[in-house]
Amino acid sequence: MSRFDVAMFGAGRIGAVHARNVAEHPGSRLKYVVDPVDAAARALAERNGARAAPEDAVWSDPEVAAIVVGSATSAHAELIEKGVRAGKAVFCEKPIDLSLARVDAVLKVVEACGRPLFMAFNRRFDPGILEMKRRIVAGDVGDVELVTVVSKDPDGGLPIEYLKTSGGMFRDMTIHDFDMARHVMGEEFTSVQATAGALCDPAIREIGDVDTACVSMQTASGRIAVITNSRRATFGYDQRVEVHGSKGMLRTENVPQDALVLERADGVRRAKPWFFFVERYARSYANEWAHFVDVLKGACAPSASGVDGRNALLLAEAAYESLATGRRVAVPP
Amino acid sequence: MSRFDVAMFGAGRIGAVHARNVAEHPGSRLKYVVDPVDAAARALAERNGARAAPEDAVWSDPEVAAIVVGSATSAHAELIEKGVRAGKAVFCEKPIDLSLARVDAVLKVVEACGRPLFMAFNRRFDPGILEMKRRIVAGDVGDVELVTVVSKDPDGGLPIEYLKTSGGMFRDMTIHDFDMARHVMGEEFTSVQATAGALCDPAIREIGDVDTACVSMQTASGRIAVITNSRRATFGYDQRVEVHGSKGMLRTENVPQDALVLERADGVRRAKPWFFFVERYARSYANEWAHFVDVLKGACAPSASGVDGRNALLLAEAAYESLATGRRVAVPP
Amino acid sequence: MSRFDVAMFGAGRIGAVHARNVAEHPGSRLKYVVDPVDAAARALAERNGARAAPEDAVWSDPEVAAIVVGSATSAHAELIEKGVRAGKAVFCEKPIDLSLARVDAVLKVVEACGRPLFMAFNRRFDPGILEMKRRIVAGDVGDVELVTVVSKDPDGGLPIEYLKTSGGMFRDMTIHDFDMARHVMGEEFTSVQATAGALCDPAIREIGDVDTACVSMQTASGRIAVITNSRRATFGYDQRVEVHGSKGMLRTENVPQDALVLERADGVRRAKPWFFFVERYARSYANEWAHFVDVLKGACAPSASGVDGRNALLLAEAAYESLATGRRVAVPP
Amino acid sequence: MSRFDVAMFGAGRIGAVHARNVAEHPGSRLKYVVDPVDAAARALAERNGARAAPEDAVWSDPEVAAIVVGSATSAHAELIEKGVRAGKAVFCEKPIDLSLARVDAVLKVVEACGRPLFMAFNRRFDPGILEMKRRIVAGDVGDVELVTVVSKDPDGGLPIEYLKTSGGMFRDMTIHDFDMARHVMGEEFTSVQATAGALCDPAIREIGDVDTACVSMQTASGRIAVITNSRRATFGYDQRVEVHGSKGMLRTENVPQDALVLERADGVRRAKPWFFFVERYARSYANEWAHFVDVLKGACAPSASGVDGRNALLLAEAAYESLATGRRVAVPP
Repeated sequence: MSRFDVAMFGAGRIGAVHARNVAEHPGSRLKYVVDPVDAAARALAERNGARAAPEDAVWSDPEVAAIVVGSATSAHAELIEKGVRAGKAVFCEKPIDLSLARVDAVLKVVEACGRPLFMAFNRRFDPGILEMKRRIVAGDVGDVELVTVVSKDPDGGLPIEYLKTSGGMFRDMTIHDFDMARHVMGEEFTSVQATAGALCDPAIREIGDVDTACVSMQTASGRIAVITNSRRATFGYDQRVEVHGSKGMLRTENVPQDALVLERADGVRRAKPWFFFVERYARSYANEWAHFVDVLKGACAPSASGVDGRNALLLAEAAYESLATGRRVAVPP
Repeated sequence: MSRFDVAMFGAGRIGAVHARNVAEHPGSRLKYVVDPVDAAARALAERNGARAAPEDAVWSDPEVAAIVVGSATSAHAELIEKGVRAGKAVFCEKPIDLSLARVDAVLKVVEACGRPLFMAFNRRFDPGILEMKRRIVAGDVGDVELVTVVSKDPDGGLPIEYLKTSGGMFRDMTIHDFDMARHVMGEEFTSVQATAGALCDPAIREIGDVDTACVSMQTASGRIAVITNSRRATFGYDQRVEVHGSKGMLRTENVPQDALVLERADGVRRAKPWFFFVERYARSYANEWAHFVDVLKGACAPSASGVDGRNALLLAEAAYESLATGRRVAVPP
Repeated sequence: MSRFDVAMFGAGRIGAVHARNVAEHPGSRLKYVVDPVDAAARALAERNGARAAPEDAVWSDPEVAAIVVGSATSAHAELIEKGVRAGKAVFCEKPIDLSLARVDAVLKVVEACGRPLFMAFNRRFDPGILEMKRRIVAGDVGDVELVTVVSKDPDGGLPIEYLKTSGGMFRDMTIHDFDMARHVMGEEFTSVQATAGALCDPAIREIGDVDTACVSMQTASGRIAVITNSRRATFGYDQRVEVHGSKGMLRTENVPQDALVLERADGVRRAKPWFFFVERYARSYANEWAHFVDVLKGACAPSASGVDGRNALLLAEAAYESLATGRRVAVPP
Repeated sequence: MSRFDVAMFGAGRIGAVHARNVAEHPGSRLKYVVDPVDAAARALAERNGARAAPEDAVWSDPEVAAIVVGSATSAHAELIEKGVRAGKAVFCEKPIDLSLARVDAVLKVVEACGRPLFMAFNRRFDPGILEMKRRIVAGDVGDVELVTVVSKDPDGGLPIEYLKTSGGMFRDMTIHDFDMARHVMGEEFTSVQATAGALCDPAIREIGDVDTACVSMQTASGRIAVITNSRRATFGYDQRVEVHGSKGMLRTENVPQDALVLERADGVRRAKPWFFFVERYARSYANEWAHFVDVLKGACAPSASGVDGRNALLLAEAAYESLATGRRVAVPP
């Protein structure tokens, strides 16, 4: 089988995850790694049979079929535009941009160029979520009435320096949950209510962000979704989704780090969940890359598109407005 | 040990539960059962070594130390008043009344008479919740930051005739969840937001009620609680509470009807949860009666009082207002 | 509904369990409690609406339809014989006797008198085991090929004084597991192998008994069952049964004392199982009494008979022989 | 970091697993793949940056530090001998050989050559088993008294052609369980009892093998281990280990394929366990390779040696003798 050549932008934590999946997949090959920190680019490239390169090498190499955007958020929009203009398919980490206007501009360029843009909402590709979605579509729980997304970062997961430039919790963290709620609900949300506070860390309060929140949303037909967030789960990455329907409930549990049970006079102890996204969603990342290879082959359209990225951002904006005004905020169509 | 004589008002489903616990407890004895349906009163009395009697027999019998109010909601307020005026301690099913003004009037009478009023928020006495509260107080999860209460009635649990006079879902069903959220949070809520719909049953929509809801609340210090409700869980009574704190999380799971596991090529199957409150909370009802016997002995004050009943009702009223206005509604102190 | 009058022999721990079930069941009434310790008899009688009486009062009262034998093991055989000769149905705790010859003699008397003898193998009536048996019979796991019974007493569950007169672990404790293995296998065992040791307690070694064991058995058609035992489980009563068949597996898990989960940085903690048989098998005891009332009504034969008691004892004898000889021992038919 | 060059013998299912781990580990590099089927060797080599080669290329290449023996069982012994004589470290799939005499001869050669031989008892490196062993050594369950190993192959896991040359279930399948029991017990077994039958498949009966078994073993100090096996688990690979000790119990559960739960009126359904060893033990294989790289670095001795392979085989031989004679068979030291 021929393999698609791929260039990786960003040699950080998430870049390393994607680079390995690109290299391992029989349908793709990692050719370039681009990163402002040259040593990081070279190290990641070497481990995956690729080479570090300047950005221009990517745009000018016709063999590169696709780029993976895993660099800093501020660089996403421009890289997407350059990529599709150079005729590459784009696999992009969320978000496209923190500004809705900029997102709209990017999506126009993408549309004009006719190249696929896949937004890497990796959780959709978690084995449990894939099966959940399949069962929803198959009607196993009837009409979806109430969706619950629990999403908490582990204690010590992210440094305050990261949070300062993250765009705020709703745009940085809850964005994944907005997408998940949309994904399993199967109907757009028309209104949003939000409650939040900065309870975990004074440093988060000082930068004007929140760290604990509840966001509820409703669709035109009255269906409800609720997201709860915390930036500090001492027991690890808390990632659970529930879909309550007219015929039953689907829910995903956290995945323990091992299958050992210790039973003693003081109780029954199991392992805590995986610490964070690299471990918890290892299979999701591999699955989403396999999906993107199918997109490259022309076998399907991206299952999470730029519009999905935009719509999740719209919900984040509405949540901020509700937080400020105390009102139920309508989501623009 | 001497036993306190008790009179039971109401010979329906919940009356039967309490009557048995009164009769079985070594510190109490069921003496009278009062019910407008004479045959029901007599049947319940006979099974528990008591006798059916008219209401006046209770008020005029000085040996009756306490009454249990398990009759129709509309009779609660008057029975509490008559009870405390006759010098009896009162164990009362929620609510005191659906009208806040009437509740306030009752509480004044209770206070004036100086007799204990215990509001039967049975879930506080579930073994898992008792242990949860003990651990919260012991500091096992640090500061409580986020409380989640999932509460769903089973499909077919309640007839539409009952719902018509129930006062609406927030006053009838969510009232238990408001109390639970207050109980585990340990700080009063100052604001409420609500989202709801009638998705399960057209008959519920026709009587102007809702059957699916999400209510979020916040305390003065910023802590958050969220309640999700449905009137239709096909898998049984869904009763789960989560307390996320700075040092860890406590949560209760549903209790399966048996401990059998079937593993086959099509998956791993366990029993569904208990159908409804009589089975699910059997131990809670026994535990709360044991607590009330301690109150009768003078060993402690009621752990759930009339003020607890009133404050839960205040949250229900605020939720209705939020539902109507779309606003975050302040809870009066 | 009329109620069958019942006399209880034995006012100890298991007597108290049965007395309450007799008194509570709408089809039975506790009339007498017989125990050499008069105060114990009176206390148990009073709590259940009965009266303490000498043995002869039972035999001479034609209204007594049944006796429950919950006294010391050494008294079982004679009480069964007296009971059936007096025309009473007999509900008897295991064992009939520790001597096989004596058991055979008792069974002849029972047969001659034509009164039902129910052997109280309570675990058959555990909700999970009832459902397990129902599913085996329904063919849900196909042909049963391998049965595993894990059965461990809790640390501190039984005093050494009890063990001294128990007849040895295989006759006292494993006897329940022999019955369970027969019950779920549905085919008699023809050979037995045993391995055992005294590892938990020097006092058990001193009285010549064992406290840790593995017994494997095979049927004529080659099916296998294995029992593992320990007299010391620090985490509570360990009671699990597995049935592996050609189409799947059925297994029962231990039942935790509450449904609380604590998740922290040091792991995920649940409650340990119930401490011992009174709590763990509360429902089983109620279920088996309900079954016996059906026997009294003539609705069915005892589902566990004197022959079941005898056959379990035969397996215990074979296990002792295998332990002594190191051989696979044939079980007499 | 420099990387050790490795040659892989065998390009089948297990060869593919090891080849990937060799290639991915930062401390090793796959240089050669040797397989009688040239196309298989080339395909596996290409996917992992290596090249297909004849056997002699390995022996004559001084850069090859180690060989992995993943070829047919009949070739193991000779490859080990050739490997250590050529100065290579050897990582070998079980068994060394099906003949004990041949195993002894190989071990003498290994000892004479002074090169490390690691027996790939992969299950020791399962994350749950690693943690189990760590906790046993730390004393978390006190003295180990009773070990239970449940090990069942999935329905359809192995073709009859494989089974014909496997050496019989005890040498081919139970061998892993013998090693596991030794590993967690921490004391050698001195006697063995076995019961077995051919219940799953007439074809297995025809080749004179068994498919369902129970093997119990005892140590000199009286500790007991029991292994149960089946060649047909319809729900997937059943792999569970229990260690009951004086202070508590450790046990590993099966690992479900995803974390989805479906709750409906007909029960609560979770995913079945992973199908077979490649999926279930993916992490174990990676962990054991990482251990072997440490051996190559000289950081430690092989944690599972040729003697471990031999001792597991001794238990298999004793089990066959017990099966034939019905006796408890002593294990030679």
